[in-house]
Amino acid sequence: MDGGRTIGVLGGGQLGRMLGEAASRLNVTVRFLDAGEHTPAKQICSVPASIGGPRHVDGSFADKAKIHELASQVDILTVEIEHVDADQLQTVLDEGLVHAVHPAPSTVRLIQDKYAQKMHLQKHGIPVVESVHIEPSSNMKSAVQDVAEKLSLPLMLKSRTQAYDGRGNFTLRSEDQIDAAIEALGNGSRPLYAEKWAPFEREIAVMVVRSVDGTVVSYPAVETVHENSICHSVYAPLRTHQPELPRRACQIAERAVATFEGAGIFGVELFLLKDGTILLNEIAPRPHNSGHYTMDACETSQFENHLRAILGLPLGSTALKVPSAAMLNILGLADLSKDQDALAKTLAPVIRSLSVPGATVHLYGKSGCRPGRKMGHINVVGPSDAHVRHRMSQLLDELERAQIAAHESKPWDTEAAKRRAAVPPPGAPKSPQDFTHPEALIGIIMGSDSDLPVMMNAAQTLKDFDVPFELTIVSAHRTPERMREYATSARTRGIRVIIAGAGGAAHLPGMVAAQTCLPVIGVPVKGSSLDGVDSLHSIVQMPRGVPVATVAINNSMNAALLAIRMLGTGIPAYADKIERHMHDMEAGVMEKVERLERQGWWYGSPAK
Amino acid sequence: MDGGRTIGVLGGGQLGRMLGEAASRLNVTVRFLDAGEHTPAKQICSVPASIGGPRHVDGSFADKAKIHELASQVDILTVEIEHVDADQLQTVLDEGLVHAVHPAPSTVRLIQDKYAQKMHLQKHGIPVVESVHIEPSSNMKSAVQDVAEKLSLPLMLKSRTQAYDGRGNFTLRSEDQIDAAIEALGNGSRPLYAEKWAPFEREIAVMVVRSVDGTVVSYPAVETVHENSICHSVYAPLRTHQPELPRRACQIAERAVATFEGAGIFGVELFLLKDGTILLNEIAPRPHNSGHYTMDACETSQFENHLRAILGLPLGSTALKVPSAAMLNILGLADLSKDQDALAKTLAPVIRSLSVPGATVHLYGKSGCRPGRKMGHINVVGPSDAHVRHRMSQLLDELERAQIAAHESKPWDTEAAKRRAAVPPPGAPKSPQDFTHPEALIGIIMGSDSDLPVMMNAAQTLKDFDVPFELTIVSAHRTPERMREYATSARTRGIRVIIAGAGGAAHLPGMVAAQTCLPVIGVPVKGSSLDGVDSLHSIVQMPRGVPVATVAINNSMNAALLAIRMLGTGIPAYADKIERHMHDMEAGVMEKVERLERQGWWYGSPAK
Repeated sequence: MDGGRTIGVLGGGQLGRMLGEAASRLNVTVRFLDAGEHTPAKQICSVPASIGGPRHVDGSFADKAKIHELASQVDILTVEIEHVDADQLQTVLDEGLVHAVHPAPSTVRLIQDKYAQKMHLQKHGIPVVESVHIEPSSNMKSAVQDVAEKLSLPLMLKSRTQAYDGRGNFTLRSEDQIDAAIEALGNGSRPLYAEKWAPFEREIAVMVVRSVDGTVVSYPAVETVHENSICHSVYAPLRTHQPELPRRACQIAERAVATFEGAGIFGVELFLLKDGTILLNEIAPRPHNSGHYTMDACETSQFENHLRAILGLPLGSTALKVPSAAMLNILGLADLSKDQDALAKTLAPVIRSLSVPGATVHLYGKSGCRPGRKMGHINVVGPSDAHVRHRMSQLLDELERAQIAAHESKPWDTEAAKRRAAVPPPGAPKSPQDFTHPEALIGIIMGSDSDLPVMMNAAQTLKDFDVPFELTIVSAHRTPERMREYATSARTRGIRVIIAGAGGAAHLPGMVAAQTCLPVIGVPVKGSSLDGVDSLHSIVQMPRGVPVATVAINNSMNAALLAIRMLGTGIPAYADKIERHMHDMEAGVMEKVERLERQGWWYGSPAK
Repeated sequence: MDGGRTIGVLGGGQLGRMLGEAASRLNVTVRFLDAGEHTPAKQICSVPASIGGPRHVDGSFADKAKIHELASQVDILTVEIEHVDADQLQTVLDEGLVHAVHPAPSTVRLIQDKYAQKMHLQKHGIPVVESVHIEPSSNMKSAVQDVAEKLSLPLMLKSRTQAYDGRGNFTLRSEDQIDAAIEALGNGSRPLYAEKWAPFEREIAVMVVRSVDGTVVSYPAVETVHENSICHSVYAPLRTHQPELPRRACQIAERAVATFEGAGIFGVELFLLKDGTILLNEIAPRPHNSGHYTMDACETSQFENHLRAILGLPLGSTALKVPSAAMLNILGLADLSKDQDALAKTLAPVIRSLSVPGATVHLYGKSGCRPGRKMGHINVVGPSDAHVRHRMSQLLDELERAQIAAHESKPWDTEAAKRRAAVPPPGAPKSPQDFTHPEALIGIIMGSDSDLPVMMNAAQTLKDFDVPFELTIVSAHRTPERMREYATSARTRGIRVIIAGAGGAAHLPGMVAAQTCLPVIGVPVKGSSLDGVDSLHSIVQMPRGVPVATVAINNSMNAALLAIRMLGTGIPAYADKIERHMHDMEAGVMEKVERLERQGWWYGSPAK
């Protein structure tokens, strides 16, 4: 494909491996520069001795001579890690050894230096955390003290270069720690900078792909969860009460990537503060851990889109092809140099995870293993957040067991267990008092608790069908602002259908339908006068443009069944459940037919 | 993973390549036996000289010594092609050289011989085409004449062994062709058999995976399209007017695979006759072209499930993770030995297909190219059949152009163009008279054409929103059987929402809802008396268990908008369209506000 242009990649780890996988599918030849003959990437791109043409290179991606050797064999250079010799990338480009380097060497250089990266973004109007450079000097301590005064504590002290997965970062909480921080960050040998503390509520990431002509296209915004500064898991798409948040995050990420030169995929990490502010944390000029979910969940994976971008091919669709997805990193649980079972211990939960539907395992073929090393990841897809979270909770269970079995005196990742405990099983809230499933697909609302006796049938039916729902009171007339918030946030929170019950001059269903694109089902609740006809007509006779799906007076059970039928248009399992329910109803009536037949209808009531 | 068991595969072509890809993701080592150092499979499983352990074997998968060599290096043997030396597989198993051979050598032997395969299936009660063995003899002609008399013409003459992709088949239409047939099928050197002509309407395929304990699990039934006896394209899931057909096809396939020994994936090809009869055509004991769609469309690909099965790991979910999918084979368009641009000509449409959303290219890295050779395939996924068919039609367009550009005097595949022409663009039927989109998502029905003036607004709204729909007359009272058929077949035909309009004693919406699991929207049509209240109450006051989503009297526009909101729960693009429509409505009213403000409300009507 594509006239046989060959790509050279600096770095041959897992990101290179997944790039190589995407390249094979496009008949694109890729050669890697990394130390070792059998790195994760080299394992899946064979170069038999008999084949002429480009070869993998055994050496460091920071070694000028080795970069030159790779460049002289390929047409386009790219990176799977940014800690490469950017000057040499520029040199081989200037010498005409390669046709292109993507992203541009200048971009790699800029991004390598986290402080320069921040200043560049700030200059282009991208919101970033306030940062202060700390000049290496003989008196680092007083320099750090000055900065601490300026930015106030706590703050982040960071190495400007060679930092990743939390290495090169130090959280400075009190002045006592300054000496320890300086020691941990290289004793003044490396340039540092300080970042003002960003009390973020959540971490967001957006993958952005940039074509050779500078077009930028983003993948959906996702939520990332970090532990010990290493990516632990990712959830896509981002769920939020703020309907405009996902778009805003993508726009910031796109604007940021548009300021850089060269083509390829970029991973953009963002902080979401309590007040809704988004700050850009940092950018990776390459495929990124927060984009691994795209391999099984999007129409084009981040790896394929990187290749397409640097080859000048059309960019692929970045849309999710499944309703919901997550990613869990598989980190080493033991040290192979001390424990010969380290690999088996690490991979035990992976094997057990094969029973989880929608889970796809991606292992990296690493021969070494040590605690915290990225050994693989598991992507999970499903028809709803509730399904995906439940599937993830099974994986987290296995992970926790494996950690305990790995005989760490203190399980390495105690947070997983806590988080897992917070993940309820899928389906309906289990206790009769509990109306709130955190990943509800259906919202039941009513104007007043006086409607509850009628609306409980809807709740009970959803429980019986194991459909995750939430139930609350929203009054059109007494809480119009709450109604607006409920209606406008419902879609981005993951709700797919709203059931609204109301009586009398029943405005709730129609007013909610006027403020959401979701289907709204209205249940006319019978009041003390007019036998419910007032409610029925208030709900059903909506003007053109805003429909409410109206069911029979007081029949909230049918509202629930209708909501499940609607879900069934996207989730076949729910349609199957409705089919079974209809068979059961038929069988129930046929049983009565038989009983009546046996007892004889002429003897009076069969109920005797 | 899995204690380091190594798999040896007989055959190293594209099926081996995709097995290898799945194996890498599971850290499973795979070694291939095939002629050549750089076959499609060997390209993506590297064995550097410095690495001990198993190596690929260069040789024929029918060569006893080579099979022995591979077996002595690995733990489990499997095949990516059935034309291997089955006896030798049994020998290396008996000698304890390998732990297991999957599927069992006896299964491979049985399936290699298509006639024996048919007899075996028949013995187990699986419906197959009637077949008659033809003993090789000096007088083949009279033997064939006897069979022609018995089965009547036309019939299929087939080689019992070494037949695939149409090779080894001859369609005998008249007795004149007998000599030519005998010559084409090896002049009596190979055993033949005759198959009664099966006038099938469609071809169906089902992938079935069998675990080591004999459990069989099927993937969804799909429709396959063959041209010149080579698989051209696949559509998943199977759409049909017969609601029980997909399940029935899967059951036959599962029963058939359950009769064989050993684990692994099996491709089962079936014929669907006009009268609804399903006949099993043939079985492949390996990954199969009709299962390639699973790579991008299912929760577990056929290749990964084959590995899981033969390793004794839990089988993965076979569910579709997308609503609709298709696969298109990329066949060579020219002969590389005569035309140095053969590969470029063949792959030109592939490059252009990169712009089609939901399309994923899988090329096989073959260095040779000749007309009809399988060079790769393109999987297409999408949120509905209409989306997928439209995406496929773009690919078929490119394919047609490439064929013309390949300067074949007669384009190799004229059928593609014809079929493409039959595929309309997605969205609403385009002409005002045309109400029937072949991949409709919404069905509009009404009791009589007198309801059409009211129901036309629904049709117009769906057109405006580019939603594929069908519109027809179905009367509960006058065509109850047609109503039953419409309602019960709607789901398996791909319809997701039904809009039913009716007046007076309006039974249609409720009676349809009682016979389908899809959501049904009822439009009360105002009659000559009672102002439509009769229709409204007849539609909305449904009993518990069977809901109808009722909209305002005569407001079929709202029915359409509600239907699109329902689709939006599974297809985000439709929810986006509703959001834009709501903004437009708001803007439209605000325009009127401004106009009124400008003209002054005290001057009377702003319409002047």
